[in-house]
Amino acid sequence: MSSPPNPHRRATRRVYEGKVLSLDVDEVEEPGGIRAVREVVRHRGSVAALPVHDDGRLVLVRQYRYAVNADVWEVPAGRLDPGETPEQGATRELEEEVGLRAGRLEPLVSLYTTPGFCDEVIHVFRATRLTAVPPRPEADERFEVATVTLEEASAMMRRGEIREGKTLVALLIERDRHGK
Amino acid sequence: MSSPPNPHRRATRRVYEGKVLSLDVDEVEEPGGIRAVREVVRHRGSVAALPVHDDGRLVLVRQYRYAVNADVWEVPAGRLDPGETPEQGATRELEEEVGLRAGRLEPLVSLYTTPGFCDEVIHVFRATRLTAVPPRPEADERFEVATVTLEEASAMMRRGEIREGKTLVALLIERDRHGK
Repeated sequence: MSSPPNPHRRATRRVYEGKVLSLDVDEVEEPGGIRAVREVVRHRGSVAALPVHDDGRLVLVRQYRYAVNADVWEVPAGRLDPGETPEQGATRELEEEVGLRAGRLEPLVSLYTTPGFCDEVIHVFRATRLTAVPPRPEADERFEVATVTLEEASAMMRRGEIREGKTLVALLIERDRHGK
Repeated sequence: MSSPPNPHRRATRRVYEGKVLSLDVDEVEEPGGIRAVREVVRHRGSVAALPVHDDGRLVLVRQYRYAVNADVWEVPAGRLDPGETPEQGATRELEEEVGLRAGRLEPLVSLYTTPGFCDEVIHVFRATRLTAVPPRPEADERFEVATVTLEEASAMMRRGEIREGKTLVALLIERDRHGK
């Protein structure tokens, strides 16, 4: 992926271009006249969706994440495919990862994961009116799927078992909505 | 920074080593026998703290973030210095960025920002019993500081003006605590 235009860029050097991300080292002059060298991870953007069944139960997935060498509980999520809208990406990821088709996708928030050095935005949805379809995980993905009540998810957060950014945001918004 | 030991690593190549981050491209065999190439951004880890005044008002900072080419509202935060505990780092960042000394730091959560490709953990605190000290921003940092009520911060979230991961988590936990 190429870097988006930025009026504060004075020079740029692409030090890596890969499958999931690219890395630029840019010389910049930022507002206020700050001159600096910024290392920037370029990422295509992601989507995530909290699936909420008609009875209020939530669907979470646990998968091994090599970067942190841990099994991580998350809401279903993944990278946007090129040309895909966030709604199309969320629909696809829900079908692939947990075999759920969403009758309704409500946008919750589009968040920066770590804007100090990375341009990734995750578009987070709440998915309802769910029906079952066959899941089709990608070749390098393996998931455990759990369906839990909001109370169970809250207990997992309290115990520190859920500790991934977008997932905490989605679950805390869900708690908020229920006045919990 | 060197990569932590990982039993699933078959081969590793450091493609970049920088000031804020390093980048490894690793050949891995993950649980379940999944063989893959993983691009991993290595980061030293970060700290963040939501400052809460005795009257309940909250302190946020806005700064230009080159990676996303936007002014971003965040809780005070920064990278851990080598050898620093999360509590020491949060204390330092609060003094540097907003000129506040915390009499109490309560750990809220240690979250992964984006574990699909990055090992960054942010230790998030709630800082109370605040007293004023002279701020001392780093040379390449410039902040706007705002002191807002929880209701004002909630309105900023609703309007999409606050959209950074750790900051959403800290503010949603604060809302939760107040039963809002």
